[in-house]
Amino acid sequence: MSRQAGRGTEAKKVSAELFTLTYGALVAQLIKDYESDEEVNKQLDKMGYNIGVRLIEDFLARSSVGRCHDFRETADVIAKVGFKMFLGITPTVANWSPAGDEFSLIVDNNPLTEFVELPDGHQNLNYSNLLSGVLRGSLEMVQMEVDVTFLQDALKGDNTTEIRLKFIRRLEDALPAGEE
Amino acid sequence: MSRQAGRGTEAKKVSAELFTLTYGALVAQLIKDYESDEEVNKQLDKMGYNIGVRLIEDFLARSSVGRCHDFRETADVIAKVGFKMFLGITPTVANWSPAGDEFSLIVDNNPLTEFVELPDGHQNLNYSNLLSGVLRGSLEMVQMEVDVTFLQDALKGDNTTEIRLKFIRRLEDALPAGEE
Repeated sequence: MSRQAGRGTEAKKVSAELFTLTYGALVAQLIKDYESDEEVNKQLDKMGYNIGVRLIEDFLARSSVGRCHDFRETADVIAKVGFKMFLGITPTVANWSPAGDEFSLIVDNNPLTEFVELPDGHQNLNYSNLLSGVLRGSLEMVQMEVDVTFLQDALKGDNTTEIRLKFIRRLEDALPAGEE
Repeated sequence: MSRQAGRGTEAKKVSAELFTLTYGALVAQLIKDYESDEEVNKQLDKMGYNIGVRLIEDFLARSSVGRCHDFRETADVIAKVGFKMFLGITPTVANWSPAGDEFSLIVDNNPLTEFVELPDGHQNLNYSNLLSGVLRGSLEMVQMEVDVTFLQDALKGDNTTEIRLKFIRRLEDALPAGEE
């Protein structure tokens, strides 16, 4: 991985509160539309996936991050470069599995949930599930298949928000033969 | 109006691209849910209204902007302080009505529409209609009833995006008697 200075063009920003409230409107709409929390989670994941597939280009262009050598490096880049760039926060990487194929992102001050309270009767809703999809989609574009799940969610009264990433496999490279 | 330095706490920011894509997911969902563009416009306006009602507090706290003396001052504050704070852009205030009760915000580089193309068959969709609602809701909280409409929309092939604000009336102050 090589990390150089950004492209010189500062990434455009909008207010986190506007984002939070707009995301809240999206989740509220999905709750209206779908029968179960599980279905809402699935839709959020799907939307996030499509967003991740597009954000990764911006990420690679702006961050000048190159190919990661292992999953530990990937974890650091996600937390310190990715989350920082898109959400303005830096989760802690923690709880590595002994085999080094699973880790958790401990997210304090999740901007998606600021001032949010789960509506009654939605204990199975993974409110921030868009993030799972974004991680899944963006990592797939750099040839990594991962499982992403919420292990804890501060919105549900847990001590913190913990997103678990499990490495599944390296996808076949789509690059033409001869390129690295 | 008095404008002092901010509260010292920098407003939290997220990436404009993440916001753009999340907003796009919201609009796409509404297009799925409602039969007509007009109904989608109405829903976006309603969501925006609810967002505006909440954003105004943040705006007043952070900007230290006081009561505006006239609609011209209001226009300047919306463009130079409000849009800047929440969307990171500064629209041009233009096309005042002779009576001074209507003006336009000319919005270049609208972050809601970056990389967006209107899907076929949605020529009546006001894609950025959330903004109308936000303006309507936030101004209502400072006792101003306004009409907000999109006169031009670059997404529809117009030269620019022009949001028209028309002052309707000053609402009765909700402050207790004796306070100013």
